Amino acid sequence: MKLMEEKILSEGKVYPGGVLKVGSFLNHNLDCGFLLEVAKEIASLYKDSGITKVLTVESSGIAIAVLVGAVMNVPALFAKKHKTTNLSGEVYSSVVHSYTHNTDYTIVAEKQFLNKEDTVLLVDDFLAEGNAVLGLLDICKQAGVSVAGAAIAIEKSFQSGGKKLREAGLRVESMAQIESMDSNIIKFRP
Amino acid sequence: MKLMEEKILSEGKVYPGGVLKVGSFLNHNLDCGFLLEVAKEIASLYKDSGITKVLTVESSGIAIAVLVGAVMNVPALFAKKHKTTNLSGEVYSSVVHSYTHNTDYTIVAEKQFLNKEDTVLLVDDFLAEGNAVLGLLDICKQAGVSVAGAAIAIEKSFQSGGKKLREAGLRVESMAQIESMDSNIIKFRP
Repeated sequence: MKLMEEKILSEGKVYPGGVLKVGSFLNHNLDCGFLLEVAKEIASLYKDSGITKVLTVESSGIAIAVLVGAVMNVPALFAKKHKTTNLSGEVYSSVVHSYTHNTDYTIVAEKQFLNKEDTVLLVDDFLAEGNAVLGLLDICKQAGVSVAGAAIAIEKSFQSGGKKLREAGLRVESMAQIESMDSNIIKFRP
Repeated sequence: MKLMEEKILSEGKVYPGGVLKVGSFLNHNLDCGFLLEVAKEIASLYKDSGITKVLTVESSGIAIAVLVGAVMNVPALFAKKHKTTNLSGEVYSSVVHSYTHNTDYTIVAEKQFLNKEDTVLLVDDFLAEGNAVLGLLDICKQAGVSVAGAAIAIEKSFQSGGKKLREAGLRVESMAQIESMDSNIIKFRP
């Protein structure tokens, strides 16, 4: 998606260790008009997949997920990190390793919000090692739902997540694929 | 807002201790079509206030905030809980007491995303004791921005937050005001 690549080039900041900061539009300050265009693109890519539910992880996936849900007119479920006292009833859960923060955390989703009849679209802001998406896939497997694919705002193609997921047969649509960020120069996969 | 009251009556569940669970549409599973209508109502109420930025707290405020931002065509900033390694530069911060979880937490917002020229609309899912909104107001004061008011999905009028904020001169628009939940019967303020 040309628009995403341009946005990354104009506002993204590269830091040592393969860190790309996009807090000005994606995961702190949200450029809502831009994100709505991203959501429309994702909805268009999956328009024939019979999506009945969007699934993401709190908190940085919520903004895109709710906009995709609004455009596709389906609900969006966000898996919560940690088990809070506000979660009632039985939950599906999965342990996810965060590459960014180098810690493990548990994501949980209430069973009542995923039905065997659902066809799910996974949405997230970043795809690096793919651990968050693998956690969501694990929850979908437990729930017995169909997964149509994943939609990612920014994929770091120099990390292994995208390759791993595609080789496992998952459809992965990334709005931008970063091939390298060496010497602070961002190069996209054509 | 009639639509919000009907939604609470049909899907909300009351638990002991004044807890109202609305995970089926507001803060776990997101009813995106419904939330878009809520966002349109909020945008309409504040259409003449010159809003340049929506401000909320992660994570349960993000969904409404990004939809309000999309409808009003302004960015939405979400204050983060805790200081993460992904926050760079200088931040505004405030300590908030969570009534629901009975703990304190720190919310932070990067200084670069709030400018003195901004007119801010505060958005959140619930208003009970008002502590989250007070934390956001504290951040706005530090940033020297104007605050046009607050827009809340569900206000628990039997708790003190709404009264406190309105007496302090803040415009507070709540899509539903719950007067009581005694004996599990939800009564709205007319």
